[in-house]
Amino acid sequence: MKAKIYVTLKKSVLDPQGVTVKHALESLGYKGVEDVRLGKYFEVTLETKDKKKAAKEIEQMCHKLLVNPVIEAFKYDLE
Amino acid sequence: MKAKIYVTLKKSVLDPQGVTVKHALESLGYKGVEDVRLGKYFEVTLETKDKKKAAKEIEQMCHKLLVNPVIEAFKYDLE
Repeated sequence: MKAKIYVTLKKSVLDPQGVTVKHALESLGYKGVEDVRLGKYFEVTLETKDKKKAAKEIEQMCHKLLVNPVIEAFKYDLE
Repeated sequence: MKAKIYVTLKKSVLDPQGVTVKHALESLGYKGVEDVRLGKYFEVTLETKDKKKAAKEIEQMCHKLLVNPVIEAFKYDLE
């Protein structure tokens, strides 16, 4: 079972990397960019085929290691 | 219009960061992890409301700046 995990900075947290990318896009001529935010993307392949068990494990992994809950939020899909 | 862009390393490219995360998860007691791959996640907000125009711009941005086509692949959703 494969989990796709999307980690984003919370809206209230400044994203200087995103601002840099926005400026770079503008300097390439893309004037219509309102905002850019950067995040992380994990693909975790688990041995288990039990969706409930996988969801529980992925949430634990996010809380313990992959996500900093002070400044980041996460979503995931299982397939 | 908001684009969510997922950038992943191609399958043939080694991902040492992913291996490190896998080992960290194992040392936390998660023995059922087969593989971990890391990627990047961008949220780009565009002024345009034209989906075709947005898709064209996002693809250009990826090719010119956001993605290294030698080692990375990308997907995106528009909403």
